[in-house]
Amino acid sequence: MAAYFQNIDKIKYEGPDSQNPLAFKYYDKDRLVLGKRMEDHLRFAACYWHTFCWNGLDPFGGDTFQRPWHQIPNAMEAAMVKADVAFDFFSKVGVPFYCFHDRDVAPEGATPRESVSNLHRIVDILGQKQEETGMKLLWGTANLFSHRRFMSGASTNPDPEIFAMAALQVKEAMDATVKLGGANYVMWGGREGYETLLNTDLKSELAQMGRFLSMAVDYKHKIGLKGPILIEPKPREPSKHQYDFDTATVYGFLKQYGLENDVKVNIEANHATLSGHSFEHEISTAIALGIFGSIDMNRGDMQCGWDTDQFPNNIPETALAMYYILQGGGFTTGGLNFDAKVRRQSIDAEDLFYGHIGGMDVSARALLIAEKMITDGKFAQITQDRYAGWRDEFGQQVLAGKLGLDAVAQRVIDRNVDVAPKSGRQELIENLLNSYI
Amino acid sequence: MAAYFQNIDKIKYEGPDSQNPLAFKYYDKDRLVLGKRMEDHLRFAACYWHTFCWNGLDPFGGDTFQRPWHQIPNAMEAAMVKADVAFDFFSKVGVPFYCFHDRDVAPEGATPRESVSNLHRIVDILGQKQEETGMKLLWGTANLFSHRRFMSGASTNPDPEIFAMAALQVKEAMDATVKLGGANYVMWGGREGYETLLNTDLKSELAQMGRFLSMAVDYKHKIGLKGPILIEPKPREPSKHQYDFDTATVYGFLKQYGLENDVKVNIEANHATLSGHSFEHEISTAIALGIFGSIDMNRGDMQCGWDTDQFPNNIPETALAMYYILQGGGFTTGGLNFDAKVRRQSIDAEDLFYGHIGGMDVSARALLIAEKMITDGKFAQITQDRYAGWRDEFGQQVLAGKLGLDAVAQRVIDRNVDVAPKSGRQELIENLLNSYI
Amino acid sequence: MAAYFQNIDKIKYEGPDSQNPLAFKYYDKDRLVLGKRMEDHLRFAACYWHTFCWNGLDPFGGDTFQRPWHQIPNAMEAAMVKADVAFDFFSKVGVPFYCFHDRDVAPEGATPRESVSNLHRIVDILGQKQEETGMKLLWGTANLFSHRRFMSGASTNPDPEIFAMAALQVKEAMDATVKLGGANYVMWGGREGYETLLNTDLKSELAQMGRFLSMAVDYKHKIGLKGPILIEPKPREPSKHQYDFDTATVYGFLKQYGLENDVKVNIEANHATLSGHSFEHEISTAIALGIFGSIDMNRGDMQCGWDTDQFPNNIPETALAMYYILQGGGFTTGGLNFDAKVRRQSIDAEDLFYGHIGGMDVSARALLIAEKMITDGKFAQITQDRYAGWRDEFGQQVLAGKLGLDAVAQRVIDRNVDVAPKSGRQELIENLLNSYI
Amino acid sequence: MAAYFQNIDKIKYEGPDSQNPLAFKYYDKDRLVLGKRMEDHLRFAACYWHTFCWNGLDPFGGDTFQRPWHQIPNAMEAAMVKADVAFDFFSKVGVPFYCFHDRDVAPEGATPRESVSNLHRIVDILGQKQEETGMKLLWGTANLFSHRRFMSGASTNPDPEIFAMAALQVKEAMDATVKLGGANYVMWGGREGYETLLNTDLKSELAQMGRFLSMAVDYKHKIGLKGPILIEPKPREPSKHQYDFDTATVYGFLKQYGLENDVKVNIEANHATLSGHSFEHEISTAIALGIFGSIDMNRGDMQCGWDTDQFPNNIPETALAMYYILQGGGFTTGGLNFDAKVRRQSIDAEDLFYGHIGGMDVSARALLIAEKMITDGKFAQITQDRYAGWRDEFGQQVLAGKLGLDAVAQRVIDRNVDVAPKSGRQELIENLLNSYI
Repeated sequence: MAAYFQNIDKIKYEGPDSQNPLAFKYYDKDRLVLGKRMEDHLRFAACYWHTFCWNGLDPFGGDTFQRPWHQIPNAMEAAMVKADVAFDFFSKVGVPFYCFHDRDVAPEGATPRESVSNLHRIVDILGQKQEETGMKLLWGTANLFSHRRFMSGASTNPDPEIFAMAALQVKEAMDATVKLGGANYVMWGGREGYETLLNTDLKSELAQMGRFLSMAVDYKHKIGLKGPILIEPKPREPSKHQYDFDTATVYGFLKQYGLENDVKVNIEANHATLSGHSFEHEISTAIALGIFGSIDMNRGDMQCGWDTDQFPNNIPETALAMYYILQGGGFTTGGLNFDAKVRRQSIDAEDLFYGHIGGMDVSARALLIAEKMITDGKFAQITQDRYAGWRDEFGQQVLAGKLGLDAVAQRVIDRNVDVAPKSGRQELIENLLNSYI
Repeated sequence: MAAYFQNIDKIKYEGPDSQNPLAFKYYDKDRLVLGKRMEDHLRFAACYWHTFCWNGLDPFGGDTFQRPWHQIPNAMEAAMVKADVAFDFFSKVGVPFYCFHDRDVAPEGATPRESVSNLHRIVDILGQKQEETGMKLLWGTANLFSHRRFMSGASTNPDPEIFAMAALQVKEAMDATVKLGGANYVMWGGREGYETLLNTDLKSELAQMGRFLSMAVDYKHKIGLKGPILIEPKPREPSKHQYDFDTATVYGFLKQYGLENDVKVNIEANHATLSGHSFEHEISTAIALGIFGSIDMNRGDMQCGWDTDQFPNNIPETALAMYYILQGGGFTTGGLNFDAKVRRQSIDAEDLFYGHIGGMDVSARALLIAEKMITDGKFAQITQDRYAGWRDEFGQQVLAGKLGLDAVAQRVIDRNVDVAPKSGRQELIENLLNSYI
Repeated sequence: MAAYFQNIDKIKYEGPDSQNPLAFKYYDKDRLVLGKRMEDHLRFAACYWHTFCWNGLDPFGGDTFQRPWHQIPNAMEAAMVKADVAFDFFSKVGVPFYCFHDRDVAPEGATPRESVSNLHRIVDILGQKQEETGMKLLWGTANLFSHRRFMSGASTNPDPEIFAMAALQVKEAMDATVKLGGANYVMWGGREGYETLLNTDLKSELAQMGRFLSMAVDYKHKIGLKGPILIEPKPREPSKHQYDFDTATVYGFLKQYGLENDVKVNIEANHATLSGHSFEHEISTAIALGIFGSIDMNRGDMQCGWDTDQFPNNIPETALAMYYILQGGGFTTGGLNFDAKVRRQSIDAEDLFYGHIGGMDVSARALLIAEKMITDGKFAQITQDRYAGWRDEFGQQVLAGKLGLDAVAQRVIDRNVDVAPKSGRQELIENLLNSYI
Repeated sequence: MAAYFQNIDKIKYEGPDSQNPLAFKYYDKDRLVLGKRMEDHLRFAACYWHTFCWNGLDPFGGDTFQRPWHQIPNAMEAAMVKADVAFDFFSKVGVPFYCFHDRDVAPEGATPRESVSNLHRIVDILGQKQEETGMKLLWGTANLFSHRRFMSGASTNPDPEIFAMAALQVKEAMDATVKLGGANYVMWGGREGYETLLNTDLKSELAQMGRFLSMAVDYKHKIGLKGPILIEPKPREPSKHQYDFDTATVYGFLKQYGLENDVKVNIEANHATLSGHSFEHEISTAIALGIFGSIDMNRGDMQCGWDTDQFPNNIPETALAMYYILQGGGFTTGGLNFDAKVRRQSIDAEDLFYGHIGGMDVSARALLIAEKMITDGKFAQITQDRYAGWRDEFGQQVLAGKLGLDAVAQRVIDRNVDVAPKSGRQELIENLLNSYI
């Protein structure tokens, strides 16, 4: 059954002129970009859930994919076949990392102990497969939203016993992440929010969530998980409102509980747009606030108000995201995880490859464009020049807090002249950006 | 010219059966609600800008109102006539408070000194009028967005000299607020954001804005302004992105600069909805975070992606907002300012009254409904019962930080049973809510 | 198993002061409103799909409801139990009508013939139950979107053999509708649209859809289905784009194929809002174009970009919809179907009752408010007065096509004066509307 | 004063490697693309309103541009200087066409006669300038939305005398268009819609609008205007609802009044997105319905709910629009008008050039990509193959109306097998699309 991709060989780089849809045209992993290999810049990961767990279901219709491993009645057996298929795919498509939720890889058991035992058995298998293939774990996470017990939230549940169930899953998923050498641990609170304020104690739920995260941070230190915990912001869906609305909201939450040094954000492109922000806004905000961690690369459809999780394909937009990431220092423990799924009409095994190849090639082109922008330097120079006044004496005094409001006001009264604004040159800069593409 | 409203008498309460469109049907200012006069609960304010400054202009067409004072060529003379009209209106419509921007009441001069002098002269007049009429100032603010010098921001401008121009205006507006006994001082950063990230130094702009607010807080203490500074969140418009996106974002910003004890939020209904939140979400969030200050009451059109600033007219929605405000303790220094404008087709003097009367009656009905909800108690009880587990021993231990993640996980392993979810009863609660209307 | 609702008796009208959550407070079916019984005005229907088929699944998580009939392994046996439960519910909640898709009531078989046979067997049972209970069928329809074969559309599928599969289902569902005395037949094209234009032949798909509808209209006449075919507009979801975007789009489509006399629209509140229109806009447009048929009553959440299908609960908004329906002559063959589902956290049997009771009471209050508006007459009078000029001589000549553009222009040149606009009085009218609530 | 652009020479093509921001890098007007000159394919037009009339005003602030001609007190004198500047700009930037509203070029007079006289005088001047420069008029139009008399609509106004005022303007603007050899005449109904249904007689307004358009079509034939009348769809803004919501709505309206052969659509990119459609959707729909006329090229910001009218800069998106236009036969009388404005912070004369150069270069790149797609043929082939079944016998019989619903259903019963769906290959196609960029 690992033979699902038997007709497909390892994907190779063939260059821009290749007509082979099962080859990379831009992603050349050993190519040096600004002194570092493409693979080390991009740190690609494939995800378990969309690629191997989703069956094509949407709110209006059923399973279109009919993957063979979804037909196996015994859940643990299915999980093992799924792991075979997954690592075969990872190896062939050539991503160095993967990501998973606990329930993606191992089935829920009849009791908490059985669930834990299922996970332990599969984690051992994943460990072996990592050794055999050289694959690494970018991050692990726990699914605290699919099971009906979490319908009213996990850490923010009105019932503390359900909070406890969530605590068990997170503890185990963190243990698994450490065991598999995961570089980060992610939390996404799909049900940490509300359907209606009418039955919600907002203050209690926020306090519960703060406590939960504090406990996770303590446990991270206890077990020696080296990388950061990453929170993945999203404004809504499935909830009407989700507490981790966007990067700025998460920052406020971290400051409230004093966790801003242990926790960073995993920014998803489609979540950014659902919250009314551009992807690059969320990236830049996280960098400015010192909490940038990793990205879930995908794209949404701005005209569909839900998470479409499509593979990225817009070259200029992806280039901009990559440019800001590089300007912010690039990835450290983080990476570029494809939280993306092929369309439910893309039902063939090959389609999973087309999706990832397209996403990897677009990201590689984006990286090459960002390289040009940085090497050329004009782009950054324009902004630097625009703010030059803030590096002069008066600007520096203000920023240093040496002048009060009245002192600054008095300066204007003394000078008694207006200040003319300068053109923001947006069109010029947009043209410049296009010249790199 | 103060004769603009000469055909209209002071608006009176005539009760629900009145057919008089120029009478209150529900707002009965001396009626006691939960032991306090309606007027003291609601603390209504009318705004200078939409009511007396706006001429009906929209992005596609011109002045529809043709107010007489807009035709007066001499700007200071026009300002004085406008003040006459405004206080005549305030008195007749019966709001106890008003609000203004510096440039609403006094015209920009040819030089900074002349602008200051214009403001001083008009503030003296406003003070006299307050004495004559008993009107009070809910809050003052500075317009840092209309003049072309602020096209790229005020405190976040790339040019520190424009930051300085903004500092002068804020200092003067704060002085005026103190002089007129204003209960709060408001900041709305219409241009504190960006049109495009491409020419923006996000980190620098956030630092500038932090500095500016810190300077304003210091100055507030220096001059003895007793009420809080209030930041008014809005996600965008006129900017593509505005830094004070929503309440949660403002909270993070205040925590970053240690200003969360001196600064609160002034929440506008329409701004809430533009940011993807309900009005009651923003109110509840501010209350939960301890930064609730005041509200700008209006309504938007969810199908128009811009700020329509209509008068509130949806009774159940307004009731919910009022309920959460009362549950949070009601207004202290804050109040309910109608940041609302009659439609540009509502060109008659009477229309200004219809707008305010409708808004005041809807708010009064909302208060009466909230009173019923609180007196009845069932509504709050449902939520309290739902979270009862958190007041039991295990819940309390968790919240008190006495149990680590592994200890809580171990509890689940020890019990080894699943936890069944309970119905959230949303439909029951919604029906209950309607029973109060 | 029909014992699912055994603890619940038939819902009775107890009046506004009742504290019983399982009683009507406003829906008093025999009460006369404008000379007609409430029941005959409102023509309520409950739907099979959301109420008995949906298990609580959403895109992020599983079955929360665990209805007993969903656990029965044999599909036909499950269908029969479901029918028992459904008619027990219909009778107890007191709706006179119900609605279903073919696949809601009878399971898909292994072959086309088996599917048809399944449907025939269940339709016989439904017929018996209708006789026993007095329930009537408001409309039937075919589910052409859930099965994977329809993933790329039904009538608009790139493969004509799938078009044929859809034809079989529609023929059978129309036959069933006639057999059960259904008052209308509905078509909703959940997959009649596209995911991406890139692989779509728009012109071909529109032609296919036109042909399919023409065939259905011919067949309707052939079998003597008396009521209209109703198309249910929706702009998107599950598709990125759906061809029946809104009422105006459907009208153009009907005109293109000459079907505007045989086909009307079934307007859903939540679909209206997803297309950027208010519910009352869609109703008024359909009335103005002569294609108003029926409504799917529910409500969406304007801040969630997907179909939330909640029960209506906003009294003023529902009143407005009801007012326009009454002004347009009320329902003839159509009715008010609750295409609404309890929230997935509302997992108890009672919650299904709370949802429907709330929806029925809100609709009844809306009807009573509309009655007041019509009886009072002031509301309609304002609009009539506003357009009075069009009933005068010049207006009538223009509308009758007696004057050319140059003749009308010449009139202006001859008069050579400007025309002053008049206030639209929106605030006055909004206040008036609230006075009826 | 025509010296406004004195420091800027005629823009030249310098090729992709040019570092000159005031040169074209891709727009090489004489380059042959698919056998036709670039200039003849693209038929670029610049617009009078955004480029020469707008002063930088937005809803929150004033004139940022301070163009010299806006300071001239005499309106006719200002109009003449503006015409000098405009034609200087047109010539230098190298667009072959321009577009205008009547009130863009000539000021409103004190009386109807004076307004007409002003227009006549300026039209003579424009004619002379066309002769001197070789510039041509792509289309003329009338501004029926800026003046306060149109606040409640022009043709849809409650007052027929205002309808008449609009008729005069349209007659005169059509005359001017003929006189200047304009290739089309455009109508955009900015106020043809409503602010609130509450005071609107929808049916009357639609009938008035139908009459108005019929009168314009008659007049077009009378005066020998050769090109089509073009309606420009937009869903809202400034109105809450605009009747010409989108292309499909306009089509239904034309069918209702039998005008589909005389009237086509002018599709604006930003209007498309405001209505929930992609630009290419609107283009393809218009082509499929046979009413494609011309485009207003620009781009919106999907996260701002208003018309931002930015210059296009996304290469892949623009390429797709161009591809569908070429596939539909390209422009005949229509063209590509930049209904786009530089940002209000782009206050320098050069910025007007950067905006247009960027837009022209992006459009030229889009044309070159579309050329590759067409020449290669793979892209269209995929879709053609996907629908192959419809060209086979059964498909053809269905489309030809030879089979009834029951006959088609019987075919399925006879075959009694399911039909397997085929992959839609969206990711493969998206990758292919990127390979052309």
